[in-house]
Amino acid sequence: MKQFRSIAKTPPKGWNSWDCYGASVTEAEVKQNAVYMKNHLKEYGYEYVVVDIQWYEPTADSSLYHAFAELEMDEYSRLIPAVNRFPSAAGGAGFKPLGDYIHSLGLKFGIHYMRGIPRQAVHTNTSIMDTGKTAKDIAKPNSICPWNTDMYGVDTTKPGAKAYYRSLIDLFGSWGVDFLKVDDIADSKLYGGHLDEIAMLRQVIDESDYDIVLSLSPGPASLEHGAFLQKHANMWRLTDDYWDNWQQLYDMFERCEKWAPFVREGNWPDCDMLPLGHLGILSVDGGGSDRRTRFTQSEQRTMLTLWSLFKSPLFYGGELTDIDSWTLDLLQNEQLINMHQSGENPEQISREDDIVIWKSESSETIWLAVFNLNDSAQHVILDLKKVLKPYHFDRNELITDELEIAPHDVTVYEFKKN
Amino acid sequence: MKQFRSIAKTPPKGWNSWDCYGASVTEAEVKQNAVYMKNHLKEYGYEYVVVDIQWYEPTADSSLYHAFAELEMDEYSRLIPAVNRFPSAAGGAGFKPLGDYIHSLGLKFGIHYMRGIPRQAVHTNTSIMDTGKTAKDIAKPNSICPWNTDMYGVDTTKPGAKAYYRSLIDLFGSWGVDFLKVDDIADSKLYGGHLDEIAMLRQVIDESDYDIVLSLSPGPASLEHGAFLQKHANMWRLTDDYWDNWQQLYDMFERCEKWAPFVREGNWPDCDMLPLGHLGILSVDGGGSDRRTRFTQSEQRTMLTLWSLFKSPLFYGGELTDIDSWTLDLLQNEQLINMHQSGENPEQISREDDIVIWKSESSETIWLAVFNLNDSAQHVILDLKKVLKPYHFDRNELITDELEIAPHDVTVYEFKKN
Amino acid sequence: MKQFRSIAKTPPKGWNSWDCYGASVTEAEVKQNAVYMKNHLKEYGYEYVVVDIQWYEPTADSSLYHAFAELEMDEYSRLIPAVNRFPSAAGGAGFKPLGDYIHSLGLKFGIHYMRGIPRQAVHTNTSIMDTGKTAKDIAKPNSICPWNTDMYGVDTTKPGAKAYYRSLIDLFGSWGVDFLKVDDIADSKLYGGHLDEIAMLRQVIDESDYDIVLSLSPGPASLEHGAFLQKHANMWRLTDDYWDNWQQLYDMFERCEKWAPFVREGNWPDCDMLPLGHLGILSVDGGGSDRRTRFTQSEQRTMLTLWSLFKSPLFYGGELTDIDSWTLDLLQNEQLINMHQSGENPEQISREDDIVIWKSESSETIWLAVFNLNDSAQHVILDLKKVLKPYHFDRNELITDELEIAPHDVTVYEFKKN
Amino acid sequence: MKQFRSIAKTPPKGWNSWDCYGASVTEAEVKQNAVYMKNHLKEYGYEYVVVDIQWYEPTADSSLYHAFAELEMDEYSRLIPAVNRFPSAAGGAGFKPLGDYIHSLGLKFGIHYMRGIPRQAVHTNTSIMDTGKTAKDIAKPNSICPWNTDMYGVDTTKPGAKAYYRSLIDLFGSWGVDFLKVDDIADSKLYGGHLDEIAMLRQVIDESDYDIVLSLSPGPASLEHGAFLQKHANMWRLTDDYWDNWQQLYDMFERCEKWAPFVREGNWPDCDMLPLGHLGILSVDGGGSDRRTRFTQSEQRTMLTLWSLFKSPLFYGGELTDIDSWTLDLLQNEQLINMHQSGENPEQISREDDIVIWKSESSETIWLAVFNLNDSAQHVILDLKKVLKPYHFDRNELITDELEIAPHDVTVYEFKKN
Repeated sequence: MKQFRSIAKTPPKGWNSWDCYGASVTEAEVKQNAVYMKNHLKEYGYEYVVVDIQWYEPTADSSLYHAFAELEMDEYSRLIPAVNRFPSAAGGAGFKPLGDYIHSLGLKFGIHYMRGIPRQAVHTNTSIMDTGKTAKDIAKPNSICPWNTDMYGVDTTKPGAKAYYRSLIDLFGSWGVDFLKVDDIADSKLYGGHLDEIAMLRQVIDESDYDIVLSLSPGPASLEHGAFLQKHANMWRLTDDYWDNWQQLYDMFERCEKWAPFVREGNWPDCDMLPLGHLGILSVDGGGSDRRTRFTQSEQRTMLTLWSLFKSPLFYGGELTDIDSWTLDLLQNEQLINMHQSGENPEQISREDDIVIWKSESSETIWLAVFNLNDSAQHVILDLKKVLKPYHFDRNELITDELEIAPHDVTVYEFKKN
Repeated sequence: MKQFRSIAKTPPKGWNSWDCYGASVTEAEVKQNAVYMKNHLKEYGYEYVVVDIQWYEPTADSSLYHAFAELEMDEYSRLIPAVNRFPSAAGGAGFKPLGDYIHSLGLKFGIHYMRGIPRQAVHTNTSIMDTGKTAKDIAKPNSICPWNTDMYGVDTTKPGAKAYYRSLIDLFGSWGVDFLKVDDIADSKLYGGHLDEIAMLRQVIDESDYDIVLSLSPGPASLEHGAFLQKHANMWRLTDDYWDNWQQLYDMFERCEKWAPFVREGNWPDCDMLPLGHLGILSVDGGGSDRRTRFTQSEQRTMLTLWSLFKSPLFYGGELTDIDSWTLDLLQNEQLINMHQSGENPEQISREDDIVIWKSESSETIWLAVFNLNDSAQHVILDLKKVLKPYHFDRNELITDELEIAPHDVTVYEFKKN
Repeated sequence: MKQFRSIAKTPPKGWNSWDCYGASVTEAEVKQNAVYMKNHLKEYGYEYVVVDIQWYEPTADSSLYHAFAELEMDEYSRLIPAVNRFPSAAGGAGFKPLGDYIHSLGLKFGIHYMRGIPRQAVHTNTSIMDTGKTAKDIAKPNSICPWNTDMYGVDTTKPGAKAYYRSLIDLFGSWGVDFLKVDDIADSKLYGGHLDEIAMLRQVIDESDYDIVLSLSPGPASLEHGAFLQKHANMWRLTDDYWDNWQQLYDMFERCEKWAPFVREGNWPDCDMLPLGHLGILSVDGGGSDRRTRFTQSEQRTMLTLWSLFKSPLFYGGELTDIDSWTLDLLQNEQLINMHQSGENPEQISREDDIVIWKSESSETIWLAVFNLNDSAQHVILDLKKVLKPYHFDRNELITDELEIAPHDVTVYEFKKN
Repeated sequence: MKQFRSIAKTPPKGWNSWDCYGASVTEAEVKQNAVYMKNHLKEYGYEYVVVDIQWYEPTADSSLYHAFAELEMDEYSRLIPAVNRFPSAAGGAGFKPLGDYIHSLGLKFGIHYMRGIPRQAVHTNTSIMDTGKTAKDIAKPNSICPWNTDMYGVDTTKPGAKAYYRSLIDLFGSWGVDFLKVDDIADSKLYGGHLDEIAMLRQVIDESDYDIVLSLSPGPASLEHGAFLQKHANMWRLTDDYWDNWQQLYDMFERCEKWAPFVREGNWPDCDMLPLGHLGILSVDGGGSDRRTRFTQSEQRTMLTLWSLFKSPLFYGGELTDIDSWTLDLLQNEQLINMHQSGENPEQISREDDIVIWKSESSETIWLAVFNLNDSAQHVILDLKKVLKPYHFDRNELITDELEIAPHDVTVYEFKKN
């Protein structure tokens, strides 16, 4: 038996196809982003390349779902890549060739899957691998996703249910999948979180031969499930889909404050992808279209600082090949990377008049981030002695500091411990 | 345009197959109950013979649903009777022969239908009559019934949606259907009431050539929708399925109290079927099995009195052909029938220590029902002057009355107006 | 025993001091409005002159409450008029002289009272009339009003509680009070509705020698309590305080739709005072100050039409002595008055694209009001045949009508029955 | 500025007067328990002696509150000890003599206080120390406790509010108070948690000259406030009052599971007092009376094990002077004490069929507690390799263990790390 938390000792970093390509990403697009990551971001810790939803749907063409679309499926009720979009999957190869390619770049391969079993499998009643059971036998017929028609839930009490989920993990493992983002599971507007299927996924991954990071979507996950999620997943979402508008970023501060006690090695509450750079190429979600991020530079700094200090996973959401240098610099910022990888016990230590102070520390360093969430610049008088004293940090010369912070911007202090 | 409320000027009465046959009733069983009704109950106002759920499923065999069962369906995505259970439906005749038979007895014919369009139609993508549309075009893909797998909801904003519902009413009308019980529509534990589909049903019935009583299930309907329901249906349920146990009967008093302001000609809040006599022959719902009703005679009197005074529809749920004479007498009770048909403005006028008094009146009569909901007999001193004075009724000799009421029993007073 | 509903056979009409004077109205102001009402509105059915909240507080000076203000109170824990504001109350006369004066004008007298017993009585522990009990004995210590510090609730299960409420009604009756508006009782943001104290008030009024209309505030009352309220009060509020802004008027349509089934003789769901004419003289509530109503003339017509058709009580909220002639005409409008007094079964019969149609009818007349709730003028094609047919009204020449309705305005049709 | 969490580096242990004396404890009773603690428990880490609620009420005589009782209060609106119950407080000495006495035993002194300012102060309008303000100026008039009449809340935005709370802490500090249990603050059935007053208490304690442990009651605190509570208090309650019945103990497992992520140095989610030994002497709460604990020995072991492993504060609730030796042994149990003081990261690691396994570890030791929450004995096969492997603990000889656990009992494993 493995200890799943050790698979993700630091918060995962990488690229995800959703924010730029919606449900429609192709193999070529995945590869070009992987290559760019290898060349420019790998040395900064970015390593996961994740193919998001609907890779099994030949007709997918944006972030809008096609109700009851025909899906590519194998004889065991498992969805497989659409060959028109992923040519290397031809001949039943599945994602193995793409996985191999990504591994050949020294990167890791991730995919998305919807909770449950295809409705198409149930209505055509295909079989479950290594059992005498069929899809009808294990489907939870009145458990659906509120926003996508691909699947029925699985009734984990039914014989064959665990075999089905095991067969999925075995297939993904054989493809070289290192990271699995399961959707419609951490929260559902109809049913709340699907804890039974989360527990079953955890069990089959633990019992498998594969080390696969488990990421749960969508949010908001419930604090009531926080302790449960710590025991069952590496990442879980704090919000519904996050996009490039200030209100969502503003709200994330309160979410992070509440979830901070749950951050620990191998458990990374997830603020969602970074909607930066070139977005919405084929993704019309979040009120968007083909664009550069709507965040100002101040807001982008604020976002990266919060995500990094809080130790959220960091998945770039834009197309990498035409990233601008300012954004690339931000992703490569050493201070943020260091804080993200080695900081511990992130915590909001004060919030007054929308001046928000977060703290994190490693064995050598204390970081303080002072955010100005106001719509106008603020003059802040910071009593560093008061702020730092509780953390047993003594630097007598630093009694107070005055600073001016632009609207929606942040200033980071870094103190070396003696 | 018709005025739908005039189709049911008094609360409908009849027989329904659910309480004794669950989802599995056959043509023979329907006919034997119809014949019995004609011979023994028609003259007392019972006239509707209603075939409940799953008459389109060949494999139905109890009240338990079969997930994803194969259903009989016509080319226009409409469910049709299973010929193995309803032989007269052979050759595409549908329920026309059975409807004709019931009409020939001087009775009226009712059927049950699930809200929406068959999932089977959607996944095989059959067409919608008189349109270029298909089932996929009009299905609301993530709108399901929480307890039955037959249908998807219909998206009333889609072209073809109204045509589909119109085609249903035209089919039912051509069969001679006088009464339509639509299910999964008045309440849903997942979504609340489906008001858009209720409104569309109302519209297509109003615009059709047919007079069809519209009954909505299941409950509990929400008081928030009370005014809406008055404008759209003849009956709607106050509870989830009602069975022969005291707690459910006890709770019905509070439900009736709250819904009494909504009772008016053509609008009959519905306390559900009468689980009396021989029940559960093939219906294992409500914790039951093949049995005589678990209600005591006191409780049966109490139920019939509340239902009648409140003007609930009255549908007998047991097998009629082996009804016992005590129960038959209760159904034929003249005082209750008179109160049920001619009473107006039913109202609970007091409740103290579980002695509950209801009142109803016609132009000639005032009825008072004094219920003892306690588990022990109660001695009640009734100040009739106080109770009746507000209703402008003067009968000086009747100052007070003392009475003893058995547990769960009722005493009815009937006063003629001067 | 009286039948309380017969005390208010039609919806009460009059004037209330709150919208112009807040908590601070004086005897002179009450009298000048009474005299104006006698001279200009009495013949149109306006008859109640109501002194709203805090008449027992000498320091009241606007609609803002003074926490823990000293109140005028008699030896039996009952609040009495502040003599500095109501000089005729001097010498313990209470409101008797003012009541007599209003009666001398042929009008009726109303006052406001807060649910419960003064906190001041409890903390100084004064006595309850005709009992050996004191205020501490009957107070419900942890039942308070969320927005006013005058009172504790009364624990109706305590000996002395009923005697206290009886002593209040006896005092008010001796003053000539015809109308009692009890506040903090129909809804409370902390506790919901206080049904036990409502029931006790009903009982002591019924058992008293006085005919007093009972009006309950604030709203929104709950539909769950609708049947209860019908049995216990003449009026109850549908909303929290209503002011002269369009959004509140817009929202009232949906409230009226839901409450329409509860309208019957003696039971008048209450849309609150009419914030018209000269408002906010000393009332700063609702974001207001000394002003003419912020409603446009269209909106005023819309409001009066909805209130009248729905049979809401009609209490003018502005200062009457400087009313303008347009507004006075509106209050004296014969069609509205007739609809308000003799209409029955008010009902919203359709709402589409914010064109809302209400209907009401008397034995001789059908009224249709077509409201345009849009922010722009609308061209409406009205199929009168379709609208009126259900109401058994035949007028062949009127097949359709086309009309143009200004934004927020209304057109009323009146049809004589044959 | 102090760092408040360092004041309670391990979970506080001691005695509290509530479970045996309710609101009525006397100085003599406090002293006899303190002496016993010094002699028998101090060396095991028990050090706090806490006087619970109503010590300022001369008439308190059980756990039942007296509505609007006269309280002892100083000129600055602060409650002071009732001299008839605490004779040493005579002459304005307050709790100083009792505090000194307890300190003289080498123990620490704690008291209870209700959130807010006395209603009695507000209605007699006494002053706030060192300000020109009075109680009326700072009271939040419509903020009350749902179950006790002593106080109004304090409006923290008002001038004088902070001065009042500071004056309380200064008074308590001058008395030698080491531990302050503030009630009606962590949760309120009317208002939820009172975060503003918690924040103000934190601030005035931090700014004072005193080290005072801050404990917040009652529960259940909300997980939504978990991160906030970590920054503001040393302890907060997980439940409403906890008593000696199995259902409450059973439910505590789920509460502890959810709160475990919040346990850290100085932050001790609180399972409430230990209702053991001789209880209910003058406390009739929780359905009790004068009795020995109703918990079986198995249940007591289970409770102490859960509380200790979870690192809850441990306050004995019974009268100590007649404790039996079995119970005393339990309090002195070395394994539990060691686990309680040096364990870290308590966590429920599995729960299946009501066999619940918790884990905790120090630098040297791993503890596993296997609880049987079933009502019958259970045979458990424990795969220790599977359970311990994730914790990097290698002990090959221990592959599996079989054990029999009595109903409601527990078995603890202790493994030394290599």
